[in-house]
Amino acid sequence: MSERDLSKSNELFQRAKRVIPGGVYGHQSPSLLVPGSFPTFISKAEGCRLTDPDGNEYIDFLCAYGPMVVGYRNPQVEEAVERQRHQCDSGNLPAPNMVELAERLVGLTPGIDWTVFAKNGSDAASWSLAIARAATGRELVAMVERTYHGVHGWANMMHEGFPAAERANIVSFAWNDAEGLERLADEHAGKLAAVIVTPFKHEAFGDSVMPAPGFLDTVRTVATRSGAAMIVDDVRAGFRLDMRGSAQLWGVTPDMILYSKALANGYPLSAVLGNDGLRDAAKRVFVTGTFFTQAVPIAASLATLDYLEANDGIARMRELGNRFCKGLSDRAEEAGLAVTLSGPPAIPFMTFQKDEGSFERSRVFAAACAARGVFVHPCHNWFVSTAHSEADVDFALDVAAEAFETVNGQFEEA
Amino acid sequence: MSERDLSKSNELFQRAKRVIPGGVYGHQSPSLLVPGSFPTFISKAEGCRLTDPDGNEYIDFLCAYGPMVVGYRNPQVEEAVERQRHQCDSGNLPAPNMVELAERLVGLTPGIDWTVFAKNGSDAASWSLAIARAATGRELVAMVERTYHGVHGWANMMHEGFPAAERANIVSFAWNDAEGLERLADEHAGKLAAVIVTPFKHEAFGDSVMPAPGFLDTVRTVATRSGAAMIVDDVRAGFRLDMRGSAQLWGVTPDMILYSKALANGYPLSAVLGNDGLRDAAKRVFVTGTFFTQAVPIAASLATLDYLEANDGIARMRELGNRFCKGLSDRAEEAGLAVTLSGPPAIPFMTFQKDEGSFERSRVFAAACAARGVFVHPCHNWFVSTAHSEADVDFALDVAAEAFETVNGQFEEA
Repeated sequence: MSERDLSKSNELFQRAKRVIPGGVYGHQSPSLLVPGSFPTFISKAEGCRLTDPDGNEYIDFLCAYGPMVVGYRNPQVEEAVERQRHQCDSGNLPAPNMVELAERLVGLTPGIDWTVFAKNGSDAASWSLAIARAATGRELVAMVERTYHGVHGWANMMHEGFPAAERANIVSFAWNDAEGLERLADEHAGKLAAVIVTPFKHEAFGDSVMPAPGFLDTVRTVATRSGAAMIVDDVRAGFRLDMRGSAQLWGVTPDMILYSKALANGYPLSAVLGNDGLRDAAKRVFVTGTFFTQAVPIAASLATLDYLEANDGIARMRELGNRFCKGLSDRAEEAGLAVTLSGPPAIPFMTFQKDEGSFERSRVFAAACAARGVFVHPCHNWFVSTAHSEADVDFALDVAAEAFETVNGQFEEA
Repeated sequence: MSERDLSKSNELFQRAKRVIPGGVYGHQSPSLLVPGSFPTFISKAEGCRLTDPDGNEYIDFLCAYGPMVVGYRNPQVEEAVERQRHQCDSGNLPAPNMVELAERLVGLTPGIDWTVFAKNGSDAASWSLAIARAATGRELVAMVERTYHGVHGWANMMHEGFPAAERANIVSFAWNDAEGLERLADEHAGKLAAVIVTPFKHEAFGDSVMPAPGFLDTVRTVATRSGAAMIVDDVRAGFRLDMRGSAQLWGVTPDMILYSKALANGYPLSAVLGNDGLRDAAKRVFVTGTFFTQAVPIAASLATLDYLEANDGIARMRELGNRFCKGLSDRAEEAGLAVTLSGPPAIPFMTFQKDEGSFERSRVFAAACAARGVFVHPCHNWFVSTAHSEADVDFALDVAAEAFETVNGQFEEA
């Protein structure tokens, strides 16, 4: 099949390179990872479909890297937004709906007594560490090695530009290494302010890894025994696995939970949720941001939660994700390709075993999918949403079958 | 005059205290600083007018702490927003208008070659330091003591929850102390990555202080001589004093400029602008955020800049600010009260000399204004916008005259 025309997108990219360092920044843009095969810009988004500046359409399994959970321009969310934006948005003071959303989240979430809102996942992550530190009078935080918790100095995985001093109070242990965590806690007895984990391991450029049986329980036990706060960074997985917070899937109740991405279906909002033991510390830690009062994202969040509850969105995404994963697995087998499907069905990811971490076949596969109208990222986990239909998934599977053949064609064995 | 009914707002505040630590957070809410005199929530905003949950109306001279610059729900901005939000907002990739806004800002701003967008002023400030550090291979940053550059660890003025290690690479000098800065630079010769300043000193709980003649020039000279980047934190003042960046008012061209607040009239957007010498470093420093691709705030920004240019917004705000400041000064004199008006006319502030920093009279004054439908903050600088009319300013001055009498009534001299 012929390549899609990306000329308008490419022209924009040439213009962008003059006025934006590198032309694009941030998340590993597939247009940089697989040059020539992906657009660099998106012009239109509706439901689970994207249109690029050249008019090419894509069924989207990246979902804006997670925020889109009930469909781009979901009618119920947009109706709530439309109502709120005629009232107020950024202001001198919050709008009444901030109270409503805090009550809603507290009501939804076992063990949680309060909520504070911000704009980025990074905001929420850094602030939760500050709360734990203020509460305990300690500075050390334990995190899982090579885990993404945002771009602030302590968390920025690239380090460039961030002094080592900003990471001085972070110690780490390996994912699923319960004994390693126990040892670390013993070694730093009386010094740990917090243990922060994601509900499952979902790093870019690697397979996702679910928690081993009992691992999150150990995190909970060790945190409690150490007098440290257990923080679950649910920024990426939140509201795709369990409405009560993803850790509840494994029966674990954290002291703080971080949300962002899907919380407001793409409207900029993040949140720290915590329990009463941390309330005084949360009062004392100074946090603010110019747009933290914004009422429109809060209205979007309330409508997103309504929609997910009314439509049993969690079960729906699991169902669709299972169909997608099983279909990919079957079609890969038919093509004679060994793939690894990882992560929970609603946040799936697929890699090629023969790539051994190079992501070469993944790039070819993603490019072949893009050329046929399916948007998957070569090196970052995917997402399904309630806006996808069985027909969308089946179309993607047909495209995947062709893309597997392209992979076979380019990586023929001797 | 009788107190306004704030019962609905107060009920909401009681609910809020159960699910939000302290009920409100962040910027010093006047409802906490002057209990019983201010609403805690805002329900409606249009032009320069706010309505609280009890239906009380206020002419707003806080402008959402700065973002509102061309009026809440400015029709031209909202029209652009309406168009864009039917296309796309948060997505896998940016929309074409990101290139347009980057080109626009580069074109507007002397000495600037590129732009990168984020969500908070804090994001922009921290990231600019990282760029300077990556560019110079140095870690030390010089800032003006007790200056607000956001809430991240290095900048958080309250310190609580943030380890001293996060402030380890910051050294400081006094505002307007050119010799002090020269000494500091000599002391740390070969070690300074950046010098960061605001265009004028605008700290809460103090009078604003304009730069002394030559002070910003000295910052420029010292930065250049030290091989350090000069960063102007224009988050609060940007697009109220000079469309080319506030430092241009004093003829100074920084290496990086930080914008947020007024950049998109209340839609969440911040930006780091920099020159070619820092472009490679900007490419290397990893920065991202889930909502950084949002196209709606960018559309709002383009329309806000259009509006400011078409209506000579800068001159208009200066004119209105001068009328406001002169009126306040005259009426205070008539009331026999010694006040200090500080800051540029478009970002004015007033304190009572006999308060000697206690802000007691300021609280009484602000409360009396609120009771009469004018929203000024007791301890934080004010803002005017293009949405204010002469009649709005004159109404505020009449209210101020009454509020001065209230102050006189409560602080009668022996």
